[in-house]
Amino acid sequence: MDVLEFRPKPDQYAWTFGGVAPTHRITPGTALKLWTEDAFSGRLQRTSDRPSQVLNIAEVNPQTGPFYVEGAEPGDTLALHIVDLTPARDWAASTTIPFFGALTGTDRTALLNDPLPEQTWIYELDRARGIVRYEAQRSSLSLELPIAPMLGTVGVAPPGREVRSSLVPDTFGGNMDTPEMRAGTTCFLGVNVEGALFSVGDGHYRQGEGESCGTAVEGAMDVTLIVELIKGHAPAWPRLEHDEHYAVVGSARPLEDAWRASQVGMIAWLGELYGLDPLDAYQLLTQISRSPLANVCDTNYSAVTKVEKSLLPAADAFDGMHRHLREQAATL
Amino acid sequence: MDVLEFRPKPDQYAWTFGGVAPTHRITPGTALKLWTEDAFSGRLQRTSDRPSQVLNIAEVNPQTGPFYVEGAEPGDTLALHIVDLTPARDWAASTTIPFFGALTGTDRTALLNDPLPEQTWIYELDRARGIVRYEAQRSSLSLELPIAPMLGTVGVAPPGREVRSSLVPDTFGGNMDTPEMRAGTTCFLGVNVEGALFSVGDGHYRQGEGESCGTAVEGAMDVTLIVELIKGHAPAWPRLEHDEHYAVVGSARPLEDAWRASQVGMIAWLGELYGLDPLDAYQLLTQISRSPLANVCDTNYSAVTKVEKSLLPAADAFDGMHRHLREQAATL
Amino acid sequence: MDVLEFRPKPDQYAWTFGGVAPTHRITPGTALKLWTEDAFSGRLQRTSDRPSQVLNIAEVNPQTGPFYVEGAEPGDTLALHIVDLTPARDWAASTTIPFFGALTGTDRTALLNDPLPEQTWIYELDRARGIVRYEAQRSSLSLELPIAPMLGTVGVAPPGREVRSSLVPDTFGGNMDTPEMRAGTTCFLGVNVEGALFSVGDGHYRQGEGESCGTAVEGAMDVTLIVELIKGHAPAWPRLEHDEHYAVVGSARPLEDAWRASQVGMIAWLGELYGLDPLDAYQLLTQISRSPLANVCDTNYSAVTKVEKSLLPAADAFDGMHRHLREQAATL
Amino acid sequence: MDVLEFRPKPDQYAWTFGGVAPTHRITPGTALKLWTEDAFSGRLQRTSDRPSQVLNIAEVNPQTGPFYVEGAEPGDTLALHIVDLTPARDWAASTTIPFFGALTGTDRTALLNDPLPEQTWIYELDRARGIVRYEAQRSSLSLELPIAPMLGTVGVAPPGREVRSSLVPDTFGGNMDTPEMRAGTTCFLGVNVEGALFSVGDGHYRQGEGESCGTAVEGAMDVTLIVELIKGHAPAWPRLEHDEHYAVVGSARPLEDAWRASQVGMIAWLGELYGLDPLDAYQLLTQISRSPLANVCDTNYSAVTKVEKSLLPAADAFDGMHRHLREQAATL
Repeated sequence: MDVLEFRPKPDQYAWTFGGVAPTHRITPGTALKLWTEDAFSGRLQRTSDRPSQVLNIAEVNPQTGPFYVEGAEPGDTLALHIVDLTPARDWAASTTIPFFGALTGTDRTALLNDPLPEQTWIYELDRARGIVRYEAQRSSLSLELPIAPMLGTVGVAPPGREVRSSLVPDTFGGNMDTPEMRAGTTCFLGVNVEGALFSVGDGHYRQGEGESCGTAVEGAMDVTLIVELIKGHAPAWPRLEHDEHYAVVGSARPLEDAWRASQVGMIAWLGELYGLDPLDAYQLLTQISRSPLANVCDTNYSAVTKVEKSLLPAADAFDGMHRHLREQAATL
Repeated sequence: MDVLEFRPKPDQYAWTFGGVAPTHRITPGTALKLWTEDAFSGRLQRTSDRPSQVLNIAEVNPQTGPFYVEGAEPGDTLALHIVDLTPARDWAASTTIPFFGALTGTDRTALLNDPLPEQTWIYELDRARGIVRYEAQRSSLSLELPIAPMLGTVGVAPPGREVRSSLVPDTFGGNMDTPEMRAGTTCFLGVNVEGALFSVGDGHYRQGEGESCGTAVEGAMDVTLIVELIKGHAPAWPRLEHDEHYAVVGSARPLEDAWRASQVGMIAWLGELYGLDPLDAYQLLTQISRSPLANVCDTNYSAVTKVEKSLLPAADAFDGMHRHLREQAATL
Repeated sequence: MDVLEFRPKPDQYAWTFGGVAPTHRITPGTALKLWTEDAFSGRLQRTSDRPSQVLNIAEVNPQTGPFYVEGAEPGDTLALHIVDLTPARDWAASTTIPFFGALTGTDRTALLNDPLPEQTWIYELDRARGIVRYEAQRSSLSLELPIAPMLGTVGVAPPGREVRSSLVPDTFGGNMDTPEMRAGTTCFLGVNVEGALFSVGDGHYRQGEGESCGTAVEGAMDVTLIVELIKGHAPAWPRLEHDEHYAVVGSARPLEDAWRASQVGMIAWLGELYGLDPLDAYQLLTQISRSPLANVCDTNYSAVTKVEKSLLPAADAFDGMHRHLREQAATL
Repeated sequence: MDVLEFRPKPDQYAWTFGGVAPTHRITPGTALKLWTEDAFSGRLQRTSDRPSQVLNIAEVNPQTGPFYVEGAEPGDTLALHIVDLTPARDWAASTTIPFFGALTGTDRTALLNDPLPEQTWIYELDRARGIVRYEAQRSSLSLELPIAPMLGTVGVAPPGREVRSSLVPDTFGGNMDTPEMRAGTTCFLGVNVEGALFSVGDGHYRQGEGESCGTAVEGAMDVTLIVELIKGHAPAWPRLEHDEHYAVVGSARPLEDAWRASQVGMIAWLGELYGLDPLDAYQLLTQISRSPLANVCDTNYSAVTKVEKSLLPAADAFDGMHRHLREQAATL
């Protein structure tokens, strides 16, 4: 297996999906060992740092990539298998950015309230024990939380000639901010432009479902991926496969529309896997869906529909691509 | 412990929260052994039954109760501990009701589309193995699904002189339709009127998160509860406690507002339990929240914010009421 | 024409739609000369009054009524023609109530922001000139605004055994808060219970579309109505007729659903009036709809779809009831 | 005054805001006499044309432009005064596009319903009388509707390196689809990139508020504009000025957020014009706002907050730019 290692310099970051020349051209089957900077571009380092003072809002969610996948054409399906996610620093940060987050007025939910106070939390990582330490800043509580590394942002170039900020989740993936995007996940994305032009970033050492305040335990990440290409079969919305689950991520506002997209996407997938009629799939999903929220803070909100494989007959989604990639991963 | 058994006759069902005389007056500490009819009032029995022909829309979600709790006053907190939920029939039903459900135009999301086809699924229960059988009706798939009994509807009389249909979830609980309402759960509800006047119903042998098509695996249920009363401390939104979790249920439209209510409710609870400042609790929740949807089909949508106790210091919510009720339950 | 005059005493106010015994029984064709207290129950009188200190939240939007209309049965249509609305005091009030209004976090859009400051504005009425005076409280601006009296609240008892607060707008009318409810308007409401049990209240000396801060220029009102009954033909949502317009009011959340209900309601009405196919009516409405918002602050939001009669062929909605009531009004 | 005439050939259309090289560079003060193709790129011509057969979804809403305005820098304000809009053809078209429109399931409000039927309406223009003729297609009604020409799409390049489809309305203007964008309007847009790069298109011979079915009376248009530049003062959301009104357009989902943005935008503008405190402006707007919807069908919905100048003291918004442009227009 070809292995490409890449640690972008700051001037190599991408800030958008689409609209940027690829940093590399790779062939399907390549493994990537990447480094991703944190969502704050590394600028938030101390509990005394205030986002309004240290952040450059034009430089958040730096992307590693994009990568041009040889042979990828619109209508194809890109398969990205996350082999490993390892924190690349011994600390991570989270904060309240003025007029951003789920429980405050924002630029989109425009209100007359003042912004919430800016407050920064720094999480020290105990790598051996696999925990980060939460320290309350305005009251007294210190907790150990297990790390659960994930990527906030995995996306391809959008359709329709668009270029979108790396803060946006949509049909092309992007800033979905779901804890389901973890080591062991295969992410299937429809290809919209020649070469797919995918990128990754926004590592979280852990994140709750909904990403309430808008920023997770944000940290630089060492990322190992394997990239594959499936001709045709592009799904309408990003699909995820774990050993134990199928999942579909929808992104929209209001939140019910994000979830509806994920449900209709899963109904389509169950139809493909089992020849289920849409109404039969609707009924089945009604009884077995897991529906963990992803984010309720980004430009679009993201919601997940997830089903346990153990409840379903065995099947080979995308001709067994996930199993194949798991096997490939084992050889790295 | 006083034990009251009650199997209402059809003319004893309640169809609303509030506005109905109590069937019984009980003292705090009483155990109830109840029977609840299914959400269809038992009228949907065969796969050939069509909701528009057999259902009486004025008689859905029949409630067992209401119960007048001696000493309960506005501002108090009712604690309902679900000791056991056992399917009371060997079958259950689900269906697509015209203009009802998450993936169709409805009376509230009024569109010009025709209704989806009416289709009914009957689930046979294998009591010994604890499974129900899903049979596709318009395509070919037969699956065994583990039962996971829950109550769709647990509520008290609403505040502000209102009387609400048993189809409605809101601050008073009601038709929250969350799989978190299962055996082992203690549900804390703020009391709005003298006697609290709570009722239960709408048993589901299992349900996915979101209750997509609007009806779960609906079945009559044998319900064992213990009722307790806490003076004062009424929470703004229903709180649930399991051995492993705290959870808050919010109900509103759009869905983000349901979830926001559950988040703000949990921030308040974490503040009570640990003296956490709201901004510190917001941060903590951002990293640890589980956010499983409850329903995206009812008059208000319901969303859950849930945290694992194992991540938090030991605490005695409501002075250890859940533990006390678990111990009481063990004596039944 | 029978004329009934009624000025309720405070202990005669109704606070809900449904759930209250009628103050009077009237026959169709009766004219009513009523007095309505303001939405604050008259408690907000000075710019120094703070809502959190002087208001009793259990006593807002007092209703005059309900009136039992002889012969009204579920499925019938109540026609209420507003003959005249005259300010009953020489001043009116508006204010910012904590966690209420369109541009602040609320109990339903639960956020962590502090409430906006409480501020009260008193509007002096110049009856001769038909203006109220706006005086800025925190900056310098004084303006004369023409009065445009309207009723915030016109409703019947709800269906489905429910009782709703007088703060709620829904299919039964209620707290729609639309400036279209003015002298010259005939309001058609579907009857849900024997006698219809309608009430009115919440006079506004004027109000912008959306009622942004949640409270209009709130003042006691002298109200002259004529009440008629149409057997059958109950519309799904409240319909309004002026000499120049037809209008339908939808109430729901999110706001698009309120508007969708008003649009589908108007498509139904155009179908009744002109035999238009729904798709043809959809097309026509696309090109001629006026869509002024009503309120974006109440329990449900309300939106209006309005069409100019001058664009349409002559028609007799409800067999010419509006014209008949206009003629009757002229005889008062 | 410099006058530039431009009728783009099909290969000169722009399909996005941003991401396209300018067709012309112009200096502030230039008048433009432009021709814009209709939203369907002229492909929908007969009532028998079906959108799914004749439209190329990658080629809708063709833009005339973009124009590079010399001296325009981020943070500046572009003023576009619409001098004249004249239908450029003697017919126009409207249609129901599958899964598009306000009263159907869509790609964003994903449901399981079938699409509505595809139906096309052709409107013949009687230029002398200033009317278009509506002809029902599935029932019998023929109506004359006055023309009221407007531009659906007026926008600049977006901020944040983004490129957006010409179907999108947002802070940069774009596909706002508001009837307020008519001859006599000055549109103020914040500049995001060097040269502003504005374009126009999507002429409507008339449109109702909300653009229910998703397509207005769509027709090619002769457009006369005057372009001016104001250094600095970029508004957060598009502002419109007529002789009689100020208006702000907000675009977001759900619809309440679009409207909130327009309200907060107007509160800011009233603050600039009159030194009004935000709370005082909130109060004033509550009593005087006109809130006509623009579109409830596009990627973001658009809502307008509009105030009548006659209610306010005289003021010179943007130093009297609108009056200046009206005077300039008179000299053309």
